[in-house]
Amino acid sequence: MGNKPLNSKAQNSPQPVRAYETVLKSIEADLRSGKIKIGDQLPGERALAETHGISRASVRDAIRILDAMGMVRTSTGSGPNSGAVVISEPAIGLSATLRLHVASRQLSVADIVESRILLETWAARSADLSSDPERSAAVLRRTADLLTAMDDPGLNREEFHDLDSQFHVLLSSLAGNAVIEAMMESLRLSISEYVSESVSGDDAWQQIAEVLRAQHHGIHRAVAAGDGTVAATLLREHIDWFYTETRQL
Amino acid sequence: MGNKPLNSKAQNSPQPVRAYETVLKSIEADLRSGKIKIGDQLPGERALAETHGISRASVRDAIRILDAMGMVRTSTGSGPNSGAVVISEPAIGLSATLRLHVASRQLSVADIVESRILLETWAARSADLSSDPERSAAVLRRTADLLTAMDDPGLNREEFHDLDSQFHVLLSSLAGNAVIEAMMESLRLSISEYVSESVSGDDAWQQIAEVLRAQHHGIHRAVAAGDGTVAATLLREHIDWFYTETRQL
Repeated sequence: MGNKPLNSKAQNSPQPVRAYETVLKSIEADLRSGKIKIGDQLPGERALAETHGISRASVRDAIRILDAMGMVRTSTGSGPNSGAVVISEPAIGLSATLRLHVASRQLSVADIVESRILLETWAARSADLSSDPERSAAVLRRTADLLTAMDDPGLNREEFHDLDSQFHVLLSSLAGNAVIEAMMESLRLSISEYVSESVSGDDAWQQIAEVLRAQHHGIHRAVAAGDGTVAATLLREHIDWFYTETRQL
Repeated sequence: MGNKPLNSKAQNSPQPVRAYETVLKSIEADLRSGKIKIGDQLPGERALAETHGISRASVRDAIRILDAMGMVRTSTGSGPNSGAVVISEPAIGLSATLRLHVASRQLSVADIVESRILLETWAARSADLSSDPERSAAVLRRTADLLTAMDDPGLNREEFHDLDSQFHVLLSSLAGNAVIEAMMESLRLSISEYVSESVSGDDAWQQIAEVLRAQHHGIHRAVAAGDGTVAATLLREHIDWFYTETRQL
């Protein structure tokens, strides 16, 4: 492993070495203390530059990084001047990072798929319908609605993928671990383009969608019946089948 | 869940909406095609700006984001002008993202710990010493050396944590999944400061370190004996104990 100087840096959090890191540290501290909350608007570029005694360019660097990590939303085209709004979409930042490391071949698609199966089968086995019955019932209804929507043969592929993604994320939420949920979603997103590229024709896609629909219904039935073991087995088959079908692993 | 417009964006990868995204997309494509490899130096700021017909400020945005994601290393203080070197340290980008979302309370420390236990016990159960006996033996020797180094009572806390981290990452590598390894490491890093803050005195720390040493030796023995089930049980106890001891979960 060697000395991994960059990891040590992240661990021990010494003084920031770059100007924009001052802003990142300060925003992180304000989030931790509750001074900044999700939904708040960050101070403007000029105010942040004055507060931290750094250039506006460095403030902009920090905002861009927060944007890439799914921590703020900036208005398209208007730049950070107009004020960034604090959001918190961990899967955006995680998937953007994973994508790049898959592209560099540091991470393999096969390992991404294996990880997704691990997280999603854990979520299925850990789903707890009884701890919050009202919420569980709402999730089961909403996922059933998604299945009905996906059954529509007139859907295009993009629409199908969006509903499919919502279905998996919502079902996983029954396990009550937002970290697993975000990681699972980010794994899927990080390789979605590899999948898209490998299924070229619409006919081929329609055949795949037909199988996915049947698998989704089976998974939903098992989860609704509270059978986490069966749900986990079906999910593993479903994910394995899909990636084997859509690319050479 | 709503419509999650940002997720849909990541999924369907439409035209980039911001200038720096053009550079990110292009670098990702070059990584995928093998035109850029780990260890290469990226073209300078001016060259990238000319290639993509965008401002040097936008190029700098892209480089900063790649840096935050653990994809390039830029020389401290010299700015992106001097050329960024392509690295691939997924745990850096993943942990930076997780830290911020933990700070915003979108992700909880308890969920981070539960996720770490899931990944690390999976790695212990999946460790395969026989597929590459030479490498496995080297990992077991190296981790034994780390334990010896950690037994030194003269180590300061920071040094101990660095060795501890190497120990866990190296042992997990026996499962052969770099994604799990990177995610596990990033989960640990994302909450390391919360732990540091909660153990104030050196005496308290020395007592904790004494228990950690004994636990590490037990885990190492189980892994070396090829007993993944015992190793997983000991790891779960170890991680649970550590976080219970060092903070209120």
